[in-house]
Amino acid sequence: MRKEKKLSCFFEPKTVAVIGASNQTGSAGYFIMENFVAGKFHGKVFPVNPNHKQIFGLKSFSSVLKIKEEIDLAVICTPAKTVPGIFRECGEKRIPATIIISAGFNETGNNALTLELKKEIKRYPNTRCIGPNCLGVLNSFTGVDTLFLPEYRLERPQKGSVSFISQSGALGSAILDWASMQGYGISKFVSYGNALDVDESDLIEYLARDKQTRVIAVYLEGVKNGRKFFETAKKYGCKKPIIVLKGGTTKAGSKAALSHTASLAGSSKVFKALFKQTALIEARHLLELFDYARTFARLPKPKGKRIQIITDGGGYGILTADSIELNGMKLAEMSPESIEKIKAKMPSYAIIKNPMDLTGDATNERYETAIQQALLDEKVDMVIVIILYQVPTLNSSIVPTIAKLNRKKIKPLIVISVGGSYSDLHKRALEKEGVINFSYPNEAVKSLKVLHEFYSKKKKHEKN
Amino acid sequence: MRKEKKLSCFFEPKTVAVIGASNQTGSAGYFIMENFVAGKFHGKVFPVNPNHKQIFGLKSFSSVLKIKEEIDLAVICTPAKTVPGIFRECGEKRIPATIIISAGFNETGNNALTLELKKEIKRYPNTRCIGPNCLGVLNSFTGVDTLFLPEYRLERPQKGSVSFISQSGALGSAILDWASMQGYGISKFVSYGNALDVDESDLIEYLARDKQTRVIAVYLEGVKNGRKFFETAKKYGCKKPIIVLKGGTTKAGSKAALSHTASLAGSSKVFKALFKQTALIEARHLLELFDYARTFARLPKPKGKRIQIITDGGGYGILTADSIELNGMKLAEMSPESIEKIKAKMPSYAIIKNPMDLTGDATNERYETAIQQALLDEKVDMVIVIILYQVPTLNSSIVPTIAKLNRKKIKPLIVISVGGSYSDLHKRALEKEGVINFSYPNEAVKSLKVLHEFYSKKKKHEKN
Repeated sequence: MRKEKKLSCFFEPKTVAVIGASNQTGSAGYFIMENFVAGKFHGKVFPVNPNHKQIFGLKSFSSVLKIKEEIDLAVICTPAKTVPGIFRECGEKRIPATIIISAGFNETGNNALTLELKKEIKRYPNTRCIGPNCLGVLNSFTGVDTLFLPEYRLERPQKGSVSFISQSGALGSAILDWASMQGYGISKFVSYGNALDVDESDLIEYLARDKQTRVIAVYLEGVKNGRKFFETAKKYGCKKPIIVLKGGTTKAGSKAALSHTASLAGSSKVFKALFKQTALIEARHLLELFDYARTFARLPKPKGKRIQIITDGGGYGILTADSIELNGMKLAEMSPESIEKIKAKMPSYAIIKNPMDLTGDATNERYETAIQQALLDEKVDMVIVIILYQVPTLNSSIVPTIAKLNRKKIKPLIVISVGGSYSDLHKRALEKEGVINFSYPNEAVKSLKVLHEFYSKKKKHEKN
Repeated sequence: MRKEKKLSCFFEPKTVAVIGASNQTGSAGYFIMENFVAGKFHGKVFPVNPNHKQIFGLKSFSSVLKIKEEIDLAVICTPAKTVPGIFRECGEKRIPATIIISAGFNETGNNALTLELKKEIKRYPNTRCIGPNCLGVLNSFTGVDTLFLPEYRLERPQKGSVSFISQSGALGSAILDWASMQGYGISKFVSYGNALDVDESDLIEYLARDKQTRVIAVYLEGVKNGRKFFETAKKYGCKKPIIVLKGGTTKAGSKAALSHTASLAGSSKVFKALFKQTALIEARHLLELFDYARTFARLPKPKGKRIQIITDGGGYGILTADSIELNGMKLAEMSPESIEKIKAKMPSYAIIKNPMDLTGDATNERYETAIQQALLDEKVDMVIVIILYQVPTLNSSIVPTIAKLNRKKIKPLIVISVGGSYSDLHKRALEKEGVINFSYPNEAVKSLKVLHEFYSKKKKHEKN
């Protein structure tokens, strides 16, 4: 069995060699050099390209073997046929981590070349390898960024607590782009492609132990080693929320997965069993993957499943109550004392039930009273605050009001921001203040359900 | 039985009296006057308010009975207790349409006043009434706009082919606001509140016959007259797509509906049966209501349920294939001739199957070739085009290319625009050109499924 080596050099290297570095804009070797030289990376960069003397103003080496310093990470973006030889040189130099960006291996049916590379990987067990056929790694904290797409096409998100693992590079990059637009932070991102060495299980294990990662979100098409994946899920599924979207759960999808990452997509039954037997969280669709990731990143652990709805629009309150029942959650019943306290500060026509309807002339003060009491009440586990900003009696200081109430994170609190551009302004302001927002009741309730389920499962698994 | 009178005066009045008109900004009487006087309305406006001589520079009348001209529509926004008397005057003046904005009737338990108003309504069967406790009517074509919210809080959408009916005013206004932000047009909008006279069935019937309405979207909590609603659904459900979101389908939700619009929400079983027996389209959530409405507004009738996927990202293709199978749709199988034609213009590594993967160096030309052939192929009924705009070989002229191919509306075509801000730019540009966009595979496939189902049901019902 090959010796397990820590993966930290992929994420926190001090010295990086870019093999296939280039001065020519548009090429992968150019963008990757640019990321390391002009980006946030503070370590030392060594371009490797025998055809040039200087690249990005730095001395270019003809081979990694010519570099005197120790190299922590080599990024390989040369034509496929050169990769086995280059990997061998990395092995000779005892480089602990390599990322092979280059495509043209088993995913295109090039099995001979793939076998050749596999042999080299086996020969140098201390040289770990991500890829080939991948985008590689992004670490928002150290500035490692092997994504060969310019920032104007693919925004880089800010630092955050969610780490993403994606077998598909394109899907992974779309996730990054989406997170940037929404203002969500990312800790680490890995597109691992054909996974000839480092696979999803290794990455999950690493991120589960990583202090800068609070939530792990995974897109995968196939699993290289089912037993290993199951053990990893069992061992780490309780440590942190690990949300998994599985592509190729149907006949149609799994056929497509075979041509994509050469994955033999496991049957959906096996995965259903996996989700049952471990605390792994299933996302059935992309939207769920996004919603659940940001929910776990933002919300604290709930004590139970009783939700209080606070709204200024009756219709939205009703739809949310419907969703709560349909998702197996419960409407909270506030204590008589809480209700008295709230009623004392409300007009007689406000409906102090659940949903609590502050009505179409709701004010910031009414929201403050209601939310404060719901957060204090022992019989309320989570709070959904629905705001229709069209109400003329509301003003923009609703944002700092809610942000303040949410700051201590006593209980999970979700805001459903309803409407168009005017609402959107407030939604973004709330998100900046750390308050999670949804546009629709059902998506909000589903996310709270999954939050509650994870912590229940975790408790159960920890007991056993 | 009261004489049925056409509802057109609500939507196309030539003369309007605003009873409770006001010069004081912030009041409903002010905003409604402003909408009629400063907005797109071309008819004549008569303010009614005994306390003022002039309102908005127009002569103010002490009563509608003092106006010499015939009045087509009266908008009433005076305190609740004055409403029965004012309605009687409208009846005396033989005004065919009245909208009672005022709240404070059965929804707040004020049953005596409600009975009094009901008696007046019964006495004047030729004076129809929308409300009370509602926002009233918006017609993008004639400029009728009784929504008492300023435009900066509630945007008004452009002219379009979707009409919305909402029992909840707040939910209705949120829909308008949302449609404006997304650039979707609205034909007519009605918030009808407590429905003491005109109800959801009357409005559906009117809109089903309205030439400016292509799609009807409905939010309702209860149904006033179940038999009438069923007959209306049966008669008009096949004429046009009528999408219904029902609030209060659960115990929790229906309890809340009772305090909201005094609705006795029917059990969800009754509605399930209704959706089965008629061509009415069920939206289970708000997002579905929005997605289905814009789908029917934009897409032509499909011949069958075979979908061709064209993508530049493998992962998205797989997820879309999964969704197609899970939603009971079919992956199209293009004819060998089509495949030959496409292959002739593609590099060898492009995957010309379904999903068709144009891969990470896709160009505008590859998309054009693939889409054109899919639209021509007899074995393809609908097309989903997935675009990851991050791909460096793509450029912005993909927008006119797709817009041109879509212009003839030969087959339903949906674009899934993937990513962040850069994608969003293109998404908006495509929408402006009439191309429908989704962010996620599952939402796109569900919408195509509903599109196909409606036309199948329509065919079946028309045979019977």
